[in-house]
Amino acid sequence: MSCRYMAAVSSSLLRSSITLSPFNPLKPPNSIRLIQSSFQLPARQCPRRAMSRVGATHDEEAAARAAATEADSGAPTIFDKIISKEIPSSIVYEDDKVLAFRDINPQAPVHVLVIPKLRDGLTELGKLHFVSRMIPILMAEPRHEDILGHLLHASKIVAEKEGIVDGFRVVINSGASACQSVYHLHLHVLGGRQLKWPPG
Amino acid sequence: MSCRYMAAVSSSLLRSSITLSPFNPLKPPNSIRLIQSSFQLPARQCPRRAMSRVGATHDEEAAARAAATEADSGAPTIFDKIISKEIPSSIVYEDDKVLAFRDINPQAPVHVLVIPKLRDGLTELGKLHFVSRMIPILMAEPRHEDILGHLLHASKIVAEKEGIVDGFRVVINSGASACQSVYHLHLHVLGGRQLKWPPG
Repeated sequence: MSCRYMAAVSSSLLRSSITLSPFNPLKPPNSIRLIQSSFQLPARQCPRRAMSRVGATHDEEAAARAAATEADSGAPTIFDKIISKEIPSSIVYEDDKVLAFRDINPQAPVHVLVIPKLRDGLTELGKLHFVSRMIPILMAEPRHEDILGHLLHASKIVAEKEGIVDGFRVVINSGASACQSVYHLHLHVLGGRQLKWPPG
Repeated sequence: MSCRYMAAVSSSLLRSSITLSPFNPLKPPNSIRLIQSSFQLPARQCPRRAMSRVGATHDEEAAARAAATEADSGAPTIFDKIISKEIPSSIVYEDDKVLAFRDINPQAPVHVLVIPKLRDGLTELGKLHFVSRMIPILMAEPRHEDILGHLLHASKIVAEKEGIVDGFRVVINSGASACQSVYHLHLHVLGGRQLKWPPG
């Protein structure tokens, strides 16, 4: 989930009383989709794609920066409810350490997010955070290498399961300028079409 | 290195007699740049960006597919000569397991490639290869998790060293449809500008 400001609304989502759809357990209820759509911009409104939409671009960047301020709070994100199954998702792969589920706003025929079940400080791959003015915390420390390696290996398993192992891209956004908007580390696995270059 | 068919020319490069530039040890000699430029398409000629350039797009995809046929050969790539320092590169970070150097065709103000020094079967993150008609080999096996985790952690170190730790994107292309063109696993670390969505 990127460029979508889910982090900015995750706390309000978590406070919301959410009724799950009884008709399709994999489909988010209307209340969730309504909140999400209110905070989403179409992908084509991304920077440099449409110069006439500079206002939207600036809004998007500002919203991503706003989401970034949540990163330091350590607050739960929407992913916590997906992990606990309180919010349903279309799960592709799961083991004791990771969960992989389809992105609700796919950017390719196959678009899956792979996340660690235990965030363990990994709000993002790397950034200098301050718990106070004098105490910096750097994400992705050496102790995280085990889970990082497992996440990449799980991405390959996802590609196999989705039938795209012959061609897929893994993307990790870290920070606002990379369009990260949920501060729980996640890997995007995309495939099923010819991917372009540069990658955003 | 992507969409650039370096793999297709790597064997010819390896056979070439290359004279390193005495003026700038970090700058590839003209002979290398000449070969590279012959096989590069401008980034803006990527699929769906310019419909009038369908011919070039098809050439690009065909060339990437051609490079993919080299993947199964186990032949050395241009990265082997970069690792051995036979071909100079602008190194950002190095330890006993990984090497990180600047991409010669950067797609952002900061664009660094992070590679394992020992390929160890990791031509790409994942693909079904056949050593014979009956023996499939899947890349990125569980035994690779250590080096995969170290590569991601090294990407964060690179971001710190390059001053982009507040915002950067890590991209791994696997296979022709993701524009992979050197069959030695490599992570792209990009930053220094607002990155767009979708990621290619």
